[in-house]
Amino acid sequence: MKVGGKHYNSIWLNDDGWSISVIDQRVLPHRFNTVRLSALEQVAAAIVDMTVRGAPLIGITAAYGLCIAVRKNPTDDALMQACGRLKKTRPTAVNLFRLLDELCLELMRVSPNARAALAYQTVAGYWNADIDHCYAIGQHGKKLLEGLWPRAQAKGRTRLNVLTHCNAGWLATVDWGTALAPIYLAHDAGIPVHVWVDETRPRNQGSSLTAWELAQHGVDHTLIVDNVGGHLMQRGEVDCCIVGADRVTRSGDVCNKIGTYLKALAAWDNDVPFYVALPESSIDWQLTDGILQVPIEQRDGREVSHVRGLTPAGEHAEVAIVGGDSKIANYGFDVTPARLVSALITESGVCEASSHGLAQLYPDCADG
Amino acid sequence: MKVGGKHYNSIWLNDDGWSISVIDQRVLPHRFNTVRLSALEQVAAAIVDMTVRGAPLIGITAAYGLCIAVRKNPTDDALMQACGRLKKTRPTAVNLFRLLDELCLELMRVSPNARAALAYQTVAGYWNADIDHCYAIGQHGKKLLEGLWPRAQAKGRTRLNVLTHCNAGWLATVDWGTALAPIYLAHDAGIPVHVWVDETRPRNQGSSLTAWELAQHGVDHTLIVDNVGGHLMQRGEVDCCIVGADRVTRSGDVCNKIGTYLKALAAWDNDVPFYVALPESSIDWQLTDGILQVPIEQRDGREVSHVRGLTPAGEHAEVAIVGGDSKIANYGFDVTPARLVSALITESGVCEASSHGLAQLYPDCADG
Repeated sequence: MKVGGKHYNSIWLNDDGWSISVIDQRVLPHRFNTVRLSALEQVAAAIVDMTVRGAPLIGITAAYGLCIAVRKNPTDDALMQACGRLKKTRPTAVNLFRLLDELCLELMRVSPNARAALAYQTVAGYWNADIDHCYAIGQHGKKLLEGLWPRAQAKGRTRLNVLTHCNAGWLATVDWGTALAPIYLAHDAGIPVHVWVDETRPRNQGSSLTAWELAQHGVDHTLIVDNVGGHLMQRGEVDCCIVGADRVTRSGDVCNKIGTYLKALAAWDNDVPFYVALPESSIDWQLTDGILQVPIEQRDGREVSHVRGLTPAGEHAEVAIVGGDSKIANYGFDVTPARLVSALITESGVCEASSHGLAQLYPDCADG
Repeated sequence: MKVGGKHYNSIWLNDDGWSISVIDQRVLPHRFNTVRLSALEQVAAAIVDMTVRGAPLIGITAAYGLCIAVRKNPTDDALMQACGRLKKTRPTAVNLFRLLDELCLELMRVSPNARAALAYQTVAGYWNADIDHCYAIGQHGKKLLEGLWPRAQAKGRTRLNVLTHCNAGWLATVDWGTALAPIYLAHDAGIPVHVWVDETRPRNQGSSLTAWELAQHGVDHTLIVDNVGGHLMQRGEVDCCIVGADRVTRSGDVCNKIGTYLKALAAWDNDVPFYVALPESSIDWQLTDGILQVPIEQRDGREVSHVRGLTPAGEHAEVAIVGGDSKIANYGFDVTPARLVSALITESGVCEASSHGLAQLYPDCADG
């Protein structure tokens, strides 16, 4: 994707061949800063403090973190320790655990002195695959939007209204995004897509990341607070919802950014298709019940009580919006039961959100 | 209600016998300021800029605005003009229109020179009735909470969890509140009520007003962003929801702060009772279909793009949280269909949210 005309990915290997750089997602949309990460602890901190976020990007970033650690110390002990450290960063998105386990297993098969080279080579593969997968998600999802557009036109609409929650755009992946990939490709194909962007409290990934991405790409969009989506669906102002996912169970339950479940309920109540876009790496084939089994991250209440923004003088500042006498609970994710999901959009195609649907697309994984 | 040990109402007649004072609700919880209003335009502005808000309080404030106008000029023309001006302040809450129409009709029956005295006397009656009605709502609602408490205890709970959205506390009325009145009375009766407080974007009436009110009264509460309620209900962490209303149709559809509908859907999906507390003055007996007929206010996008709070230096400041390239839509209210409402709690008792239920409590009005 392009930022001010220049092509960017959300993460890249630097010219030194071993350190990585990422876009600092904490200061968008007001500043576009990149950050170089050259030590395991820096990578872990960047995931914890959400310099990078988004399930696929967290996975790739952690995998590069393991590369950096292995380059420094390739012994079995150091490898295990680095892997353990990175797994402790965030609990909910499964991509992190899947990629780290896969990479670690791969590296254990070779002698320590061969590990650094293999690690960087393998993660370069993950990096490229993430782009390919997101592009494929975009192609499959675009067909769904193309299918909805004549229906919207028949109702006299001049735009196709898509609602999204949080940020599942290219900033959440290496490129293209998951939920936003179909939107970019449909837009590029000439469908007049208009996106309702949920601001997505408490961290406002919608207003600060999704709105910014869409503006960079020239996609028509309107920012709304998280409370608005139900009202819009009731009034026929939403043709479909598309969101990303942090972890999907083998039965099709979707764990995603807190508030997703509320939008899925409203979509269901108003016969609005509710799509979830994800790479296979976001599926947890071990789990059958999202509500009972997916660990839901709880974060610092300060994310709720304090808001960052620009002062009238153009300075980055934080203000407290809550008085001192209240407890705060800050859950990062919720689970949308499969019954409320119209379809899953993956790199392998579109399927029903169910064990059956996923098994049709991924027979080998579903058997495992 | 008490603020720092001193008894306050949200609005009162000053010692001069004609001007009024209100609590400036725009600067809570960081500052407790009162504002004297002594001219029609000041009163209208205080309603528009939300110095005062909350359907019942808007009604009482507007009625006092008419008193102030009539005191200055009691002619038919001036009366009509003042009434028209006040009606243009905010479109959704019906209390404003009902009280103004009633008061205006009353005043037209007497000669201009008798109007000012009658106006102040009549509005004093409204003021007192609002307190009585809210207290009665509190008593009726308290019984519902008392009924839920043994069930919660049987499940091993040590507190009764009530979720509320926006502020329907004493700040939204003259005293006691609507949705919060049952909570205050249950708390005072020894039930260990714990309130989940939705922050209520974009203006954060939950975090700035409801949390503050509950803290002043010593009611245990936890602030959450608007996205969280569905997750909590899914996990069994909510025993009931209670919200206020800005306008209820004769068929029981509830127009309330934007986002209420999403919480009602989650309550319905998880078998959590969803109660709406309101005085009869919030019922629009003319309307039968909330979604089609209630006018939904749209406010300035700046309420979404900018957030007020305290800087680390303790100064009141506003920061921009949105980039410059996005449109913003800011709907103030939504409609929860009667089918999702477990019961209405009014000063006359508890009833089903339906034409039938309301007709049982208010046979005369329902006939009209």
